Amino acid sequence: MKKEDVWKSKRSPRGGGVRKREGSLKVATVEGRRTPWVEIKTYTFHPTIYKSMLGRVSADAKAGDIVTVYDRKGEIFGSGLFNGKARVPLRVYQHGEDEFGEADFLALLDRAINARKDVLKLEEATEAYRVVHSDGDGLSGLVVDRLGDVLSIQVHSFGIYQRLPEWIPYLKEKLAASQVIVEVEPKIADLEGIHIDESLSDDIRFAKFQEHGVRYEADFRDGHKTGFFCDQRDNRKLFGGYAAGKDVLDVCCYTGGFALNAKLGGASDVTAVDLDEKAIAQAKRNANLNGQAKVNWTHCDAFSFMRQMQRNGRQWDLVNLDPPKLIFSKDQSAEGMKKYEDLNQLACTLVKPGGVMATYSCSGQLSAEEFEEMAIRSAHRAGRRLQILDRTGAGADHPVMSNCPESRYLKAIWSIVW
Amino acid sequence: MKKEDVWKSKRSPRGGGVRKREGSLKVATVEGRRTPWVEIKTYTFHPTIYKSMLGRVSADAKAGDIVTVYDRKGEIFGSGLFNGKARVPLRVYQHGEDEFGEADFLALLDRAINARKDVLKLEEATEAYRVVHSDGDGLSGLVVDRLGDVLSIQVHSFGIYQRLPEWIPYLKEKLAASQVIVEVEPKIADLEGIHIDESLSDDIRFAKFQEHGVRYEADFRDGHKTGFFCDQRDNRKLFGGYAAGKDVLDVCCYTGGFALNAKLGGASDVTAVDLDEKAIAQAKRNANLNGQAKVNWTHCDAFSFMRQMQRNGRQWDLVNLDPPKLIFSKDQSAEGMKKYEDLNQLACTLVKPGGVMATYSCSGQLSAEEFEEMAIRSAHRAGRRLQILDRTGAGADHPVMSNCPESRYLKAIWSIVW
Repeated sequence: MKKEDVWKSKRSPRGGGVRKREGSLKVATVEGRRTPWVEIKTYTFHPTIYKSMLGRVSADAKAGDIVTVYDRKGEIFGSGLFNGKARVPLRVYQHGEDEFGEADFLALLDRAINARKDVLKLEEATEAYRVVHSDGDGLSGLVVDRLGDVLSIQVHSFGIYQRLPEWIPYLKEKLAASQVIVEVEPKIADLEGIHIDESLSDDIRFAKFQEHGVRYEADFRDGHKTGFFCDQRDNRKLFGGYAAGKDVLDVCCYTGGFALNAKLGGASDVTAVDLDEKAIAQAKRNANLNGQAKVNWTHCDAFSFMRQMQRNGRQWDLVNLDPPKLIFSKDQSAEGMKKYEDLNQLACTLVKPGGVMATYSCSGQLSAEEFEEMAIRSAHRAGRRLQILDRTGAGADHPVMSNCPESRYLKAIWSIVW
Repeated sequence: MKKEDVWKSKRSPRGGGVRKREGSLKVATVEGRRTPWVEIKTYTFHPTIYKSMLGRVSADAKAGDIVTVYDRKGEIFGSGLFNGKARVPLRVYQHGEDEFGEADFLALLDRAINARKDVLKLEEATEAYRVVHSDGDGLSGLVVDRLGDVLSIQVHSFGIYQRLPEWIPYLKEKLAASQVIVEVEPKIADLEGIHIDESLSDDIRFAKFQEHGVRYEADFRDGHKTGFFCDQRDNRKLFGGYAAGKDVLDVCCYTGGFALNAKLGGASDVTAVDLDEKAIAQAKRNANLNGQAKVNWTHCDAFSFMRQMQRNGRQWDLVNLDPPKLIFSKDQSAEGMKKYEDLNQLACTLVKPGGVMATYSCSGQLSAEEFEEMAIRSAHRAGRRLQILDRTGAGADHPVMSNCPESRYLKAIWSIVW
């Protein structure tokens, strides 16, 4: 791919004065500044800067450029990537006066890789982990998962996408990965003005890998997101640790990670339920990869299944409830909360008194406190009580940077249910 | 010990009418009720009921009695232990209409023991764990730690203390423990009217045990609380996992658990600081128990030490900050918060960029959210940024019952510090 193919933003004519460009941004020339530049009106260390927070923009700033960020007083505030037409026209990668160049992006990639390899020592535990977690690694707009020898890359920024031809060989070498799949959601591509270059991705469909000794396959055609949720790695292992000799139910089992950990952890019997037929098919393939681990895979809606089991008086020793994201925005949170409450209330009733339940929410809009209050409220409505043993979250390869604390999303509560 | 020795509350004369007794509680006789009984005015499933929440009390209810609890409508609400003179005159152990007898206490002890042995399988990991965690196990007023073959029992309730002569042999047998130490804080003994019976405790000073392969000794003469904090077990192990090849600082090291895990985890150098000279002495003995693990034990105030190191420009790869409880009440929370902020701000500056910090709060008054906000605020004030990897808490042997969610107290945040 040639750079010109993705550098779609037209260069604005230079010169003084202020005029509108790229939506509502004002173009200006100011002597003595590092160019290209943008001004921010809001004093924030958050990495993603929306249009309303932006002031003027230098005449030569074009989409994908590294820009110097000036504050309202005209002082240098930091450096970022500019894309005037995007919903997020500025992503800041560095604060302070130091210049920021292309090599600094590679240094940020190195940091992210070193954290996984040297600090977290993830390769001792798994062949699947998140290498770059966007804002959580100071690399807003870039997500990289390694799944075996495949790098699965998700992009949310034009400037990031533009640099992939340079970064992909770098990442492949550093991670000893042989293949790459790049994914841009169509909506994001449209918002950011990204023209998809198919040649960035290798023509592969499956990746195979092990995690804590359990074997999985990710299907890049049918998989959600990058085909496999690395964030639940430690929770899958924890769940398996509770399973020996137990009768286990896994609700919203997706491709079967929790169910397989339970079965391989010695569960006497495992029932796993999901409405997604393709996920169940993948779960069965995953079971086959692990010596044909026997699980009762059940293609059914979680609500219907649990209501029926409640009517039947069926209960399990160990229950997992890992629904997909149910709250997408503040506006819509009441509806999602109702679903969480109903699911949790039903799941509680399916746990034998003294049995264990793990319940999750991956909705970032729901805080850890709200989630815990919901779980307790739902249990009490079911006439049950939770003896909370532990609260966990996403694996450490999904870090949260302190200038972006709202990027925390996955929460889990582990309880004995009385 | 004879039961009469601790049954100090005088039996009130029976008879009709209502009159004040034991402070402000009103004594009454109501036909057709299970006796003895108490009434609660507040509709709450919380286990600890304060005086203002209590209504009338049956004439025959005396301190230490199992009482039936009636609600304002005269319906049976549950069962608990009564102690009219205490700050907590009622502790509820069961909700609902079923009768509750002495055997039900033993069943609650069994539940707690089974959770540790069979559900959490703690004995695979440690010889030291909390067997009973008061409200977290539905046994308000009783804490039992096992430290090797010693049971360390803390009591906060007259009714519980009264029953120890029966429960101690039961616990010793179930846990295959040989010795017992019973502790009642003098203030609690006074509030509850507990007369200490020295014969309940064995004459021992030390307990020896291993946890995740690290050996410790608890000193019941000089130790805080029960002499050893089981709640940090998993955090100690996690900390050790970050230590290989690293230069490590442990601030407020107490008896050295984190420092030892770091050293035994392969740290190149460990400095551990505490103001408590006796804790440092115990830490040294613990180091000797582990093949004379070499740690730079430093008897110094945390603030003074960290300020001096800051001036010296000294930084570490891995820093632990586990201060004692700093917030004791809502009134006094601003003062405690200031200390947390100062400690965290200082500790951040002592971490090399890209190094790891673990910071803790055991103040129950500080919520997990407030703690995280404080940690972030303190880091940002120090000009540093936290890349939050994980949030943990007390071990699962310190559960939180959902009718008593505020009993959560220990919180930890694990970050790469930039």
